[in-house]
Amino acid sequence: MPEPIRSLRDHLAITSDLRSAAAVLQWDQETQMPPGGVMGRATELATLTRLAHESFTSPRTGELLAAAERVAGTLDPESDDAALVRMTRRDYDRLTKLPPDFVAERAREASLSTEVWKAARKRNDFAAFQPSLQKMVDFARRTADYLGYTEHVYDALLDLYEPDMKASEVDAVFARLREVTVPFVQTIVTRGRTVDDTVLHEDYPEAQQGAFGLAVAQAFGYDLDRGRLDISAHPFASGFNAGDVRITTRYKRRDLSEAVFGIFHEAGHAMYEQGVAPELDRTPLARGASLGLHESQSRMWENIVGRSRPFWEHYLPLLRQHFPGQLRGVDVETFYRAVNRVEPSLIRTAADEVTYNLHIMLRFDLEKSLLEGRVKVADLPAAWAAKMKEYLGITPPNDADGVMQDIHWSSGSLGYFPTYSLGNVISVQLFEAARKAHPTIDEEIAHGRFATLLGWLRQNIHRHGRKFLPREILQRATGSALTLEPYLRYLQRKFGEIYGISTAGAPAAAE
Amino acid sequence: MPEPIRSLRDHLAITSDLRSAAAVLQWDQETQMPPGGVMGRATELATLTRLAHESFTSPRTGELLAAAERVAGTLDPESDDAALVRMTRRDYDRLTKLPPDFVAERAREASLSTEVWKAARKRNDFAAFQPSLQKMVDFARRTADYLGYTEHVYDALLDLYEPDMKASEVDAVFARLREVTVPFVQTIVTRGRTVDDTVLHEDYPEAQQGAFGLAVAQAFGYDLDRGRLDISAHPFASGFNAGDVRITTRYKRRDLSEAVFGIFHEAGHAMYEQGVAPELDRTPLARGASLGLHESQSRMWENIVGRSRPFWEHYLPLLRQHFPGQLRGVDVETFYRAVNRVEPSLIRTAADEVTYNLHIMLRFDLEKSLLEGRVKVADLPAAWAAKMKEYLGITPPNDADGVMQDIHWSSGSLGYFPTYSLGNVISVQLFEAARKAHPTIDEEIAHGRFATLLGWLRQNIHRHGRKFLPREILQRATGSALTLEPYLRYLQRKFGEIYGISTAGAPAAAE
Repeated sequence: MPEPIRSLRDHLAITSDLRSAAAVLQWDQETQMPPGGVMGRATELATLTRLAHESFTSPRTGELLAAAERVAGTLDPESDDAALVRMTRRDYDRLTKLPPDFVAERAREASLSTEVWKAARKRNDFAAFQPSLQKMVDFARRTADYLGYTEHVYDALLDLYEPDMKASEVDAVFARLREVTVPFVQTIVTRGRTVDDTVLHEDYPEAQQGAFGLAVAQAFGYDLDRGRLDISAHPFASGFNAGDVRITTRYKRRDLSEAVFGIFHEAGHAMYEQGVAPELDRTPLARGASLGLHESQSRMWENIVGRSRPFWEHYLPLLRQHFPGQLRGVDVETFYRAVNRVEPSLIRTAADEVTYNLHIMLRFDLEKSLLEGRVKVADLPAAWAAKMKEYLGITPPNDADGVMQDIHWSSGSLGYFPTYSLGNVISVQLFEAARKAHPTIDEEIAHGRFATLLGWLRQNIHRHGRKFLPREILQRATGSALTLEPYLRYLQRKFGEIYGISTAGAPAAAE
Repeated sequence: MPEPIRSLRDHLAITSDLRSAAAVLQWDQETQMPPGGVMGRATELATLTRLAHESFTSPRTGELLAAAERVAGTLDPESDDAALVRMTRRDYDRLTKLPPDFVAERAREASLSTEVWKAARKRNDFAAFQPSLQKMVDFARRTADYLGYTEHVYDALLDLYEPDMKASEVDAVFARLREVTVPFVQTIVTRGRTVDDTVLHEDYPEAQQGAFGLAVAQAFGYDLDRGRLDISAHPFASGFNAGDVRITTRYKRRDLSEAVFGIFHEAGHAMYEQGVAPELDRTPLARGASLGLHESQSRMWENIVGRSRPFWEHYLPLLRQHFPGQLRGVDVETFYRAVNRVEPSLIRTAADEVTYNLHIMLRFDLEKSLLEGRVKVADLPAAWAAKMKEYLGITPPNDADGVMQDIHWSSGSLGYFPTYSLGNVISVQLFEAARKAHPTIDEEIAHGRFATLLGWLRQNIHRHGRKFLPREILQRATGSALTLEPYLRYLQRKFGEIYGISTAGAPAAAE
């Protein structure tokens, strides 16, 4: 390794270690911390975040980076070293625009705001949350102002989660997605066969739900020697280093889906982080390339694999061992249909695959309106209700299960939501590429074997970490840019079959 | 607050936050972390430790401290601000002697060495632990060399745990303590009445042990809104900030003492940290004044309160509710005697009050020998066995329950052990002062009420944090310097009565 690269790497490791420490403290806050720790933790996180930011954006980084760039021309552009220099330059030019005081204050308020949200959501008290949310929206807008943008204020934030993506691209994808989804949902609801999911709402003790979910996650390839499962108010995955990537879930005794598919989902995220090449550890490249790619992993394991017929052919008998009484006489077909029931509903994380994206579009619309100043924080509950009516035809009975259902805004993560739907789209594009390379994948899933699929993902996605831009990784893995049509075909074929609807009659995927 | 004090405080808060973060990461390593996290965590801890050290020992601290000292003369010497300046100067002059690279490397190796110890202890494999232990002893010796000392190499390390204490003072206390204890144990073993503790070795399910232990800890005053209880290989208490002070324990199904008294002990530590004045938060004063004072708290709640007759008069009926079968027909006297059974035994943490200090003296002797180079790490098992024979009359059957039983050396904490016995001595001195001020304390304990005792400790010890040197705090609280005789009287009276031995015949406490 050329000396300037080595020096840059060593220096960047400090930022990496500080960010890892902050991630441990955040994980602890969500899973272990006693209530009294709130104020102290907010301060600790503010300090770690400030120091990580100061270290990364320091003149020293600028000097080492410039020196590294002088030797980078001699490197293979595909090499880890060249990618390190490239991505560090990208990050450095952006992050040096954010003052350390601003970053620290934002981290402190985000830590506090999350706790306000938790308490306010429990009491269904939007008014109590509103001042914190206002602060978070203001921080987001100021972040965008610092970072700058040419087309839309949203672009500055979206780039933090989905590098090199523009709101206008999301607009285009979402317009077509909405055009297909809204009537498709309508058709399912009005003309589709009946799908009964009462089997999912028996009494399912939490411990067995967790045991089954974790057994499947391990079968997928989630390595528990380098991970663990805990409970949190909002499920998440968090990687501290190559050897420690954790997931959380939440349980509902009368809803088998929540925790089981939640664990599949988070295991998908965690396997991505566990699969990053160890050579990238302690560099800015040692994590997923974008949240869209991250969601493509989580949603693939949750839905394309976990809600497929072949999967349950293998796993229903095993699930029955955990719940013999609850699942007596339930056959694979009934169970498969139950876990794929389509119904406009309140909660995004519990939404079926078809309506899910409508929840995302709603949030994307509201975020743009908030940032543009067209909607005020105080008016969010009403705006939320109006959009729910427009997209899903339902009205939230309260704010807890409406505008306050997600953790994201409480920590100021505006610009994040579209990556969920991008992830859905990418998941099908990747799965089809994997299946094209290995036509036996479906057959293997039907036997509870996932190594071929995981191996393809490791090779084509995971190991790269952030070495390339997400659109480059997608192009390399599938041979094409982001494309919506395979995803639309997947939805229409799968749910057309379940609901007995001829896809020919639907307005979409008419290539 | 004068501006120079404010600036110093703000600057020191960075060190404080980094140390808190490191403490969270250490707690996580001992209680939650998956095995794969070992290497990454070691690096993260090294970075946090280095940054905390660099920040504290930076020229900036020196400048701010000098500026603060220029206004300190106008302050009340008893004030928080004056104490902050005083203690920061003390710490600064010492810690600036340690190079950041050395501190970081020591932290990294300590984190790794702890894991090596855990694995080697499980396999009873001292040879596997030896190279790590050698490193830790070398680090300790180099630390002492950096810090400097006038009388004995041990002084430099002891001062880290017991500020302003010298090995020669410990020698004097221990000589007298040994002179009394060795024959007293001999008398108990050869001429004492029989004490039967089989009641402690029934089958006690772990969950109920924890529930009872925690209920008592809460009754003592341990605030669970600002704490929690977990399991670790070696029990400890750790405070991250005023709102978050956690304890751990370990369970043995066939030994009720281990977890129950362990929880009392750690709760004693935690209450000390929870009782530090909130005004001191995020300063170097926001923790216990020394490990000796810390142990005086933990050992007081564990032994003087928790192993007293009045305590069990109240709590045996409650314990019986948790274990009705195991405790059927057991009366207070039998139980009281059982939890105070004296027997030379292998494990320090499980030792009775009388033999406990012999375990400490053994370690103190060996540490001095190691640091002087008179004993080599390779010869430790043999030296350990010889000392066990000399002090306790027994021979360890293996190294796991011998030289490898404690975590301390694995993390390089040499110089720490004497504080346990100093804590025992101080605990009686403090308890007697509290009882003198509030003669109702014993009566209250017999009714499960601890607020008077805790209130006295809060007022006289806890709230001060590190504002004063430990010997100053002791003097203020009791009106006298460290004095051994009340402790000897306490031991001889309590165990003389239990074992039916006339203390007149014993060679000690003959003031």
